[in-house]
Amino acid sequence: MAESSDTAPSSETRAPIEFYFDFSSPYGYLAAHKIDDIARLYGRTVDWKPVLLGVIFKSTGAQPLLDIPLKGAYAHRDMERTARFLGVPLAFPEVMPFPSIPAARAVYWIKDQDADLAATVARALYDEAFGKGGDIRDAEVVVRIAAEHGVDADALTAALGDPAVKERLKFEVEAALQAGVCGSPFFVVDGEPFWGADRLDHVERWLATGGW
Amino acid sequence: MAESSDTAPSSETRAPIEFYFDFSSPYGYLAAHKIDDIARLYGRTVDWKPVLLGVIFKSTGAQPLLDIPLKGAYAHRDMERTARFLGVPLAFPEVMPFPSIPAARAVYWIKDQDADLAATVARALYDEAFGKGGDIRDAEVVVRIAAEHGVDADALTAALGDPAVKERLKFEVEAALQAGVCGSPFFVVDGEPFWGADRLDHVERWLATGGW
Repeated sequence: MAESSDTAPSSETRAPIEFYFDFSSPYGYLAAHKIDDIARLYGRTVDWKPVLLGVIFKSTGAQPLLDIPLKGAYAHRDMERTARFLGVPLAFPEVMPFPSIPAARAVYWIKDQDADLAATVARALYDEAFGKGGDIRDAEVVVRIAAEHGVDADALTAALGDPAVKERLKFEVEAALQAGVCGSPFFVVDGEPFWGADRLDHVERWLATGGW
Repeated sequence: MAESSDTAPSSETRAPIEFYFDFSSPYGYLAAHKIDDIARLYGRTVDWKPVLLGVIFKSTGAQPLLDIPLKGAYAHRDMERTARFLGVPLAFPEVMPFPSIPAARAVYWIKDQDADLAATVARALYDEAFGKGGDIRDAEVVVRIAAEHGVDADALTAALGDPAVKERLKFEVEAALQAGVCGSPFFVVDGEPFWGADRLDHVERWLATGGW
């Protein structure tokens, strides 16, 4: 991507790393434990963008990974091995994949007020689901976890039923599809797309070198 | 996997790394450029086992990656970027994916006489397809490339039409499915399965540590 300025941008003005993920995605959870540290090393921030794989899979014709013959059994084993490889605790929720709409809506609503707080709540939701094997499907659970981090519970409860918030998530998922997001996790660094927790090495080298 | 001997096996007696691949798989080609060096570092050999993704995809319901909306465009970009990341030359053949039955049959027939020669021919076939962007669909091309490495052209030509050789490939693909092979490349190290060129880091650490 060409720079529009003659001078190199300072780290403050560099674009954030776009981090697309579905709260129901174990590989998204694993990447969520790594991407902030990687960004920090290169003076970047992370823009946490929850999406809905159910909608994306309608475009790509994909099925939930764990439901696919052969691949499902392999993927389960690979997720646990990758978690140990990365040193991230992993416990599967009882239901997988699970509907993640309330969690995703909550993050966008919080983000419009405080992006750092939205990322904190997103991390907490992911840790509840895949760090503890908890159930974050219901709006009540999402509100409780958000409230533990200082979010106004009543306001968030109202927001989760607000048609404007519902539309906001639809818009974001559609925008992700337009941007080519085909799975979770998915990163965009200065216009370059990276799919998978197994592309964190590419993401890091891209940040270090500006591309190759 | 339990060892049946009381003493640690020497490197000569350690099981080879099983390397499953389809000649039509670009990620298989990239892995083929790396797996021998990795094996050598840990005193292992590599058992080159061509398979047919068309048969495997009937079990997993998968489509050829490059034909999938969103994923296809991403995968094309990722293949080129991964090749540069690994330092492996990559040129796409005109037709992708392509039928790889003659190439696969040839490798098994050669392997029954000389496993090292079979690996050499397999590397040469992959380099023709993805190093030079050549066309290795036809038996004549496969025979020509094998003959350049000392294989008897007439005997191989006869073998490629031999029902026993055809059955042999069918048997090997079925055995791969039974072993859980769900894509290309796919590795098995001491019973542990690894899918993808992006799992070479896991393969290497598994060889170094015996698992984690």
